Amino acid sequence: MNAAIPPDHLMPSVQLREVPQALLDALQARFGAQFSVAMAVREQHGRDESAFDVPPPDAVVFAQSTQDVADAVKLCAQYRVPVIPFGVGSSLEGHLLAVHGGVSLDVSRMNQVLHIHAEDLTVTLQPGVTRKQLNEAVKSAGLFFPIDPGADASLGGMCATRASGTNAVRYGTMRENVLALEVVTASGEVIRTGTRAKKSSAGYDLTRLMVGSEGTLGVITEITLKLHPLPEAVMAASVSFASLADAVNTTIQIIQMGVPIARCELLDGRTVAMVNRHSRLSLPETPLLLMEFHGSPEGVKEQVQTVQSIAHDHGGNAFEWAHTPEERSRLWTARHNAYFAGVQSRPGCRVISTDTCVPISRLADALLDCVTEADAAGIPYFLVGHVGDGNFHMGYLLDPNQPQERVAAEALNTQLVQRALRLGGTCSGEHGVGLHKMEFLRDEAGAGAVAMMRGIKQALDPHNILNPGKIFTL
Amino acid sequence: MNAAIPPDHLMPSVQLREVPQALLDALQARFGAQFSVAMAVREQHGRDESAFDVPPPDAVVFAQSTQDVADAVKLCAQYRVPVIPFGVGSSLEGHLLAVHGGVSLDVSRMNQVLHIHAEDLTVTLQPGVTRKQLNEAVKSAGLFFPIDPGADASLGGMCATRASGTNAVRYGTMRENVLALEVVTASGEVIRTGTRAKKSSAGYDLTRLMVGSEGTLGVITEITLKLHPLPEAVMAASVSFASLADAVNTTIQIIQMGVPIARCELLDGRTVAMVNRHSRLSLPETPLLLMEFHGSPEGVKEQVQTVQSIAHDHGGNAFEWAHTPEERSRLWTARHNAYFAGVQSRPGCRVISTDTCVPISRLADALLDCVTEADAAGIPYFLVGHVGDGNFHMGYLLDPNQPQERVAAEALNTQLVQRALRLGGTCSGEHGVGLHKMEFLRDEAGAGAVAMMRGIKQALDPHNILNPGKIFTL
Repeated sequence: MNAAIPPDHLMPSVQLREVPQALLDALQARFGAQFSVAMAVREQHGRDESAFDVPPPDAVVFAQSTQDVADAVKLCAQYRVPVIPFGVGSSLEGHLLAVHGGVSLDVSRMNQVLHIHAEDLTVTLQPGVTRKQLNEAVKSAGLFFPIDPGADASLGGMCATRASGTNAVRYGTMRENVLALEVVTASGEVIRTGTRAKKSSAGYDLTRLMVGSEGTLGVITEITLKLHPLPEAVMAASVSFASLADAVNTTIQIIQMGVPIARCELLDGRTVAMVNRHSRLSLPETPLLLMEFHGSPEGVKEQVQTVQSIAHDHGGNAFEWAHTPEERSRLWTARHNAYFAGVQSRPGCRVISTDTCVPISRLADALLDCVTEADAAGIPYFLVGHVGDGNFHMGYLLDPNQPQERVAAEALNTQLVQRALRLGGTCSGEHGVGLHKMEFLRDEAGAGAVAMMRGIKQALDPHNILNPGKIFTL
Repeated sequence: MNAAIPPDHLMPSVQLREVPQALLDALQARFGAQFSVAMAVREQHGRDESAFDVPPPDAVVFAQSTQDVADAVKLCAQYRVPVIPFGVGSSLEGHLLAVHGGVSLDVSRMNQVLHIHAEDLTVTLQPGVTRKQLNEAVKSAGLFFPIDPGADASLGGMCATRASGTNAVRYGTMRENVLALEVVTASGEVIRTGTRAKKSSAGYDLTRLMVGSEGTLGVITEITLKLHPLPEAVMAASVSFASLADAVNTTIQIIQMGVPIARCELLDGRTVAMVNRHSRLSLPETPLLLMEFHGSPEGVKEQVQTVQSIAHDHGGNAFEWAHTPEERSRLWTARHNAYFAGVQSRPGCRVISTDTCVPISRLADALLDCVTEADAAGIPYFLVGHVGDGNFHMGYLLDPNQPQERVAAEALNTQLVQRALRLGGTCSGEHGVGLHKMEFLRDEAGAGAVAMMRGIKQALDPHNILNPGKIFTL
């Protein structure tokens, strides 16, 4: 950690547990070359995209099978040592940081796409498969998986954080697109939640309980997902606006009209500038909506006509079309890299990303004041939004040598979250709670609901070994 | 119970707990005229559409507010007496039967639609609101709620059983359409799960945990739902086929082609005959698909063309169109009354309804053999299916004076469920587990997953007072 340390209340509570040598020996004996205590490996597993610095895990196990995961968890359970599942390390909220010490359980080598059931629009895969890998694997069957967080995240991590992305406005999030899971429990037992049936009323919804549980209730070892047919016709467009309010109000009206838009993404002018530099584009550096339409050729035409008319009413400039798949891909890659474009705009910075999501009618109220406040505070930031869902991210770009910037950013974040909660929204649309939003979760859900979550955690993980110290403290 | 009693293993385990007079006195004092121990009232609350006969609850409380529910649960908790939430009593699986005795907590008077947020496509309401009442309330805002079990069920009951119905193929089930709940916990505390935001990654998904928990984890006292815009264009059609296989294969192909069909319902020829008699229709008494298409006029036209061509390939007769809203309504009301049409076809019968749901490619395998087996057994039945979802119901119509019919029907049901599980499906698509499918749930989910459910139950309801004896035994 840099010498300039922010106030205590902005730092995660680090309570390292002792890891007995006997456990390390047992893991070494069981896993051989799949086990490491090398500092470089540990450090690589002790960093994510959050702004926190925490000591690395004590050891790393590279699992190659469900049996590996079960055995690793069983050994850790025996010694009451934390187990932290690790995918590609793209968490924004400190999910994989070893705040209680312990063993990082890296599942990135469990990266097989096991069964593509094109005839049922389902796929079963291992948790280390990444979203881009999955889409490559199912493309030739005429299918795709729509959930697309910015990073090329692992599907296991996407399940664990209940991820979404740019297509969620039409296709839903991981909540709607996971059919079933195989999970290793805190005692090392292997269970299955759900089947390949599209719907079920058979008992508690363990699948949805595991999705979004951030590694605290079980380690996901197999995933069955819904797939979607590649749309017959696709059109993508960018539209520029004179003001953020115009872009936001256009979005609100598109959603309220019930247009089945596939993507509806906002960037403010300064973020467009960052993206232009990072991705060598020349988009006009004013508030911008990036949109995509999926459907039959006729259906897409109808959607486009409706949306053009709405955008026109709010002064939106003529649509710029991405005509070829390559142009579309370039546009969306640029959007997905907005986070990295933001980081690049201030070399050496750390990012605190906000993640509120509000009912669509409240989006202007939620978003516009946050921008005014950030401008007034003078903190550099980027602003992107899955605005069709009412979800947006301010990414505050902080100089780690200027701790007062962090304090100011956290104050902005708190104002922003409290506003979203007042408007009927949530503190996290898609990134999860991790280390950073525990207080916000209490404010949002209330003590009673958090106590219920804690009760479930204690029932399923009585020794608190599964990714302890995340979501809530015990 | 009739003198002809089926074998023990087909009967629910009834373990009545003593209800202390002190509790009845306390409930009488707190609830006055909202409290009853009259046998007629108790009996009305001790019956549903299942085939079980169980002694009625010891008393009934008519709650009119969340505070009423909280107070009733607190008093029952104090005396460790079961509380069984009651909506309209349309459960098919014995959910509301007092197998451990206790108090029926009737929420049907909590029937206010509280807030219609048309601008966000959400509504907040009390659990006693029924689906028809809800649709009346939101119609003038140009909105509707698509989930439609056969009965005019309460929304509370629909949440509790994770209900679906004819529109689920396009709009999803209660799993996808509940945004947030207010719940009274086993200790009588009031908590909220979720917000009005469309998506969230803020902590465990308590909403989805409560949806489908069958009253065993909390009493639902307020519900926030997604609404959908009334489609611009609607077309409904019935198509007759020479064989069940033709109708089923047409369905499979419609779904595999990705047609966004709104409803796709199957009736076999004998069930069409029952429906004709009950609803005074004259549909051809051969296997029938009832379909509905929602969208823009152009979009509906495209869907219809695709589906007509698929049906034609399987020998489907020319489409019969329901041209007016009244004709459509008549057709769907007839479909919704298929259950009652079946009951009417054999006066005095009891029904055992199956509810398996399989991946769409396995639907023919799952369905056709069941029909052959039922025909061979000579048990009267009806057959309806939300086949677009891979979900169908055999309703065995049993003479209560012929216990061997029940034994035969349960044997058919067991064969049918085991087949669905082998095909990657679930024992319950939408009715829930209740008393009747506990063994099937164990077969489907496995001992480990059921143990996890049990662990959650014990954590959230340590004295097992919330609808005990349902889903699993403790």
